[in-house]
Amino acid sequence: MSGSRLFNELVEALRILPGVGAKSATRMALHVLERERERGRKLAEALSAAIERVGHCNRCRTLSEDETCGLCLSGARDASVLCVVEGLQDLLAIEQATGYRGRYFVLHGRLSPIDGLGPDELGLPRLADRLDEGEVRELIIATNATVEGEVTAHYLGELARARGIAATRLAHGVPLGGELEFVDRTTLAHAFGGRQRIDR
Amino acid sequence: MSGSRLFNELVEALRILPGVGAKSATRMALHVLERERERGRKLAEALSAAIERVGHCNRCRTLSEDETCGLCLSGARDASVLCVVEGLQDLLAIEQATGYRGRYFVLHGRLSPIDGLGPDELGLPRLADRLDEGEVRELIIATNATVEGEVTAHYLGELARARGIAATRLAHGVPLGGELEFVDRTTLAHAFGGRQRIDR
Repeated sequence: MSGSRLFNELVEALRILPGVGAKSATRMALHVLERERERGRKLAEALSAAIERVGHCNRCRTLSEDETCGLCLSGARDASVLCVVEGLQDLLAIEQATGYRGRYFVLHGRLSPIDGLGPDELGLPRLADRLDEGEVRELIIATNATVEGEVTAHYLGELARARGIAATRLAHGVPLGGELEFVDRTTLAHAFGGRQRIDR
Repeated sequence: MSGSRLFNELVEALRILPGVGAKSATRMALHVLERERERGRKLAEALSAAIERVGHCNRCRTLSEDETCGLCLSGARDASVLCVVEGLQDLLAIEQATGYRGRYFVLHGRLSPIDGLGPDELGLPRLADRLDEGEVRELIIATNATVEGEVTAHYLGELARARGIAATRLAHGVPLGGELEFVDRTTLAHAFGGRQRIDR
């Protein structure tokens, strides 16, 4: 430890960040104090501001400092397609990777009775209300390809079906660029069973 | 990008940290806002406090919020041994790895005229004054084993010699656990030339 209490406290505090151990925390604290005080001040402010003011959008439950988020309010986005994701990281991944221009709904979890996560915790009543509004024509179910994600997808599919709304699921199979020998068995079996004609 | 401006700003701000790219910054921001708001608040405070109040110790130039740091004031440390390091990370590494109980002097760099780093920038007049006080009996020169580090070490050695103070340098050679075939040529040649008798 250094001779500075405040430095040691900063190193400790940095360790709440995911993937940051004692060594990187020390490196980060040194870097900020030796070279980036001005921008470090900005970081402290951005952190406080986000923690104090960012809550959840009342329509889609994504992070937002406003009652309704920018994605829900944007007139440029198609309100007839709604993509349901388990978490914000999934929303961000889809935004970055795809050209999707519809709306979202964030569950903040997946159906998992053992963790106390039922339909209410995932905001499904609110999702049902939203589907009842009649604007949504397609529900894209983008939950994870895990057992719990599949159970959740099934439940969401029922919500859509009961209202005559088309429900779709992301395609599963061998990743692009993936070599067959390194693909896990379940995925390979699924991809093999779901093989598609190429002369279309 | 998400629909939240404050979230996006936090992600941007986190990228000043070394080793943090867009992806880890996003993961960190999500983690803090979804799970660690209370500790995130503490991090913002620790960051502000350190940035506003931590300066350099007036004796050894390490980070300190007090005029003289804890390492210099501690009566438990031997004032007759002084270890000179290029940077704080070196001081911290020595504190963690060794049982060293003497004092330090931090150069914040190495002699490098091309970068505008001369004796004054490295605080060498202050180091000379310290050696003149007569308390120091051994000067441990722990600059890096680079060309500039060696030049600096030579300069420091002269400072010590002129005052009849013993100067020592960290031992160089094959790292413990290192396999010869993977050791770089310069180190191997140095270790070979500096081979030592084992029957002592």
